[in-house]
Amino acid sequence: MIKRPDGTADLLPEQLAGWNRVERIVREVFGRYGYLEVRPPIFENTNLFTKSTGDTTDIVEKEMFTVPPRGETSDSYTFRPELTPGAIRSLIEAKAFAEKSFWKVFYWGAAFRYERPQKGRCRQFTQFGVEALGSEDPLIDVETIAVFADILKACGVARFDVRVNSLGCPACRGAFREKLKGILAPQIGTYCENCRKRIDRNVFRVVDCKVDAAKTASLPAITDNLCEACKDHFARVQRGLKEAGVAFVVDPKIVRGLDYYMRTVYEFSSPDLGSQSALGGGGRYDGLVESMGGPKIGGVGFASGVERVLIALEAANVTAPPAARLDFYAVAASPEARAPLFAIVQTLRAKGFAGDLDFEGRSMKAQFRSANKSGARFAVILGGDELAKSVVKLKNMADGGEQAVSIEEAAGMLAKGRTA
Amino acid sequence: MIKRPDGTADLLPEQLAGWNRVERIVREVFGRYGYLEVRPPIFENTNLFTKSTGDTTDIVEKEMFTVPPRGETSDSYTFRPELTPGAIRSLIEAKAFAEKSFWKVFYWGAAFRYERPQKGRCRQFTQFGVEALGSEDPLIDVETIAVFADILKACGVARFDVRVNSLGCPACRGAFREKLKGILAPQIGTYCENCRKRIDRNVFRVVDCKVDAAKTASLPAITDNLCEACKDHFARVQRGLKEAGVAFVVDPKIVRGLDYYMRTVYEFSSPDLGSQSALGGGGRYDGLVESMGGPKIGGVGFASGVERVLIALEAANVTAPPAARLDFYAVAASPEARAPLFAIVQTLRAKGFAGDLDFEGRSMKAQFRSANKSGARFAVILGGDELAKSVVKLKNMADGGEQAVSIEEAAGMLAKGRTA
Repeated sequence: MIKRPDGTADLLPEQLAGWNRVERIVREVFGRYGYLEVRPPIFENTNLFTKSTGDTTDIVEKEMFTVPPRGETSDSYTFRPELTPGAIRSLIEAKAFAEKSFWKVFYWGAAFRYERPQKGRCRQFTQFGVEALGSEDPLIDVETIAVFADILKACGVARFDVRVNSLGCPACRGAFREKLKGILAPQIGTYCENCRKRIDRNVFRVVDCKVDAAKTASLPAITDNLCEACKDHFARVQRGLKEAGVAFVVDPKIVRGLDYYMRTVYEFSSPDLGSQSALGGGGRYDGLVESMGGPKIGGVGFASGVERVLIALEAANVTAPPAARLDFYAVAASPEARAPLFAIVQTLRAKGFAGDLDFEGRSMKAQFRSANKSGARFAVILGGDELAKSVVKLKNMADGGEQAVSIEEAAGMLAKGRTA
Repeated sequence: MIKRPDGTADLLPEQLAGWNRVERIVREVFGRYGYLEVRPPIFENTNLFTKSTGDTTDIVEKEMFTVPPRGETSDSYTFRPELTPGAIRSLIEAKAFAEKSFWKVFYWGAAFRYERPQKGRCRQFTQFGVEALGSEDPLIDVETIAVFADILKACGVARFDVRVNSLGCPACRGAFREKLKGILAPQIGTYCENCRKRIDRNVFRVVDCKVDAAKTASLPAITDNLCEACKDHFARVQRGLKEAGVAFVVDPKIVRGLDYYMRTVYEFSSPDLGSQSALGGGGRYDGLVESMGGPKIGGVGFASGVERVLIALEAANVTAPPAARLDFYAVAASPEARAPLFAIVQTLRAKGFAGDLDFEGRSMKAQFRSANKSGARFAVILGGDELAKSVVKLKNMADGGEQAVSIEEAAGMLAKGRTA
């Protein structure tokens, strides 16, 4: 048989209880913070990602799901490796900033990276996150961190670490970049292959390298090399986090993998997970909206992976309640009763009750087994006697009590059982 | 700037109110019928679709979003053009039929077809639908039709047409296929190019051809050429639909575009829409699960496009309520009040209230404009006076009444205003 692709998952009803619980909580918390949903398409023109995610990133260099162009006039499409570029493009393309100068939006949706699959790292995964566009205020950096922290708490991820850093602005970051290159250049020959490639194209990724972590430990920290404006911004972010009660540490090693970040960057991780401990992260990207054809405005956002949150919940033994159980299960006492029983089921469903019946022509005993398994509160039984009298037998599955009632009466009892 | 791809849509908060309303209703009705959700990945190994959707279909021949294989050991991936194959594969792969011989599942998710974009026909669209697997009972055919009809009614699509047909089983269908070929062969030279290609590969698509509709009108109907078992099955489907109160017509022209259908097939359409009037459809596919490596069981299902349902709702003037409004909007009377105001906002959000504040450093007047626009019931105002006394000014936006209260008292009043 044909199997599912490597690095993907089939979510069956059992798993979806947990997924749908997290989605409900995420949407509730975003709503409480005033973030509005946007849903860009799942694929975009490929150059949206090369230009915004950045063409020196691993994502764009190696991991994109790209469908080749068809015919002469067609574009190359890429199934999104992240949701930020599409979310921002959608607002620019709708001329949203002419209507309102500041937008707080959130998204929830699938993303794709052609990686070697491993635990917590899939070829298809699901991101949720926010973009706050139109402000350079450090408090909005704080808010995006606080809303992510609140989501994790509301989901039941009791333990998580928040690491923040500042990458500075193009001015102080540029100066620091040259300083780093100057220090690293004489020793880069002893570094790993990736670092040797990256020293010119993106030296901050050398600082981030896990292979060469021991060698980079003594490098100067960007946080000691910020300009006055960036130093002030970062101080206010830290003060805001303290006032909002979000525990954090400053970690100059946090550089993020994407090109568009500046000033505040942050990462959330779980101390209860192994090597794949990241829960998500984000930062400020003041140049990005303008570079994509929008106004010159500030922006900040985070993204998190639902799969990671679910792994953390599993580690914390948080389980989701199963999907809502049925109100009734209908049992046919004879083959002749099946068609009229189906009509009764339809009548009760039309009144808003959740119910089901057998479609396999099984014995009454087997039908009662299904009734039990379904968790239904009542069995609605129809046989020759009931058919003749236009009634049904209603059986309370909890106490076994049975009585013959009209459909109307059965509906009344189902409704009563529900509120009890 | 880089635009979104042809044939895709950006869903912004305004549109998403309608989308989320339909999704909520679809999930509620499926729950009432006892269908459980499955969520297969968005891309699959390409041969899943060539084998199950069928390699003579337009979808597989022309419309697949396929990512070429990478390296020697990699497979070709295709972003799903429909959800049925993945949904069934996921159950087979999980050995679900060993646990339970009959499954009723539903799905909701994006699908992709590389078509020429036009109204109601997009390169990315969203399907919802069901698969009922493990029964050949005509009543389950009826149920899948009834649940789709109930969804449309619950959404507010008051007018829709249901057309049903039977394609017979491999035996009577095969005999009818030869009969049709015999009639068509002498005249096929006068038919359109597609029909000339299809007469050998899939003669039923000739019957379905819109170009040659006038010529095919006098062809014999499959419904007059069914074997006894198929005739009985179809009669029981029709009787069940009548008993369930679903209005329908029998239309021998309904053949569906996919290879796997047999016996019952059906289509829903809207009389209020133009050329793209289809709302969805489905049918029985008893051979499919076995051909995909599962047990030899019956199956039936339908799929509908959310975009089509939304167009029908627009035609019927059904609108969705906007997303929930805020409980409060916080206004800073001075720049110094902003940081402590943010802390107060966080306190109120932590108590479950939805609130927002300005992040653009704007004037009080501008902040009140935002408060008004947000639809918040209260403004929470903080200035030097309030700061000194550890209170806030709470303004009822409806009547303009203001009073100085503690945060605790403010929370109490927000809660009261909510239930009123």
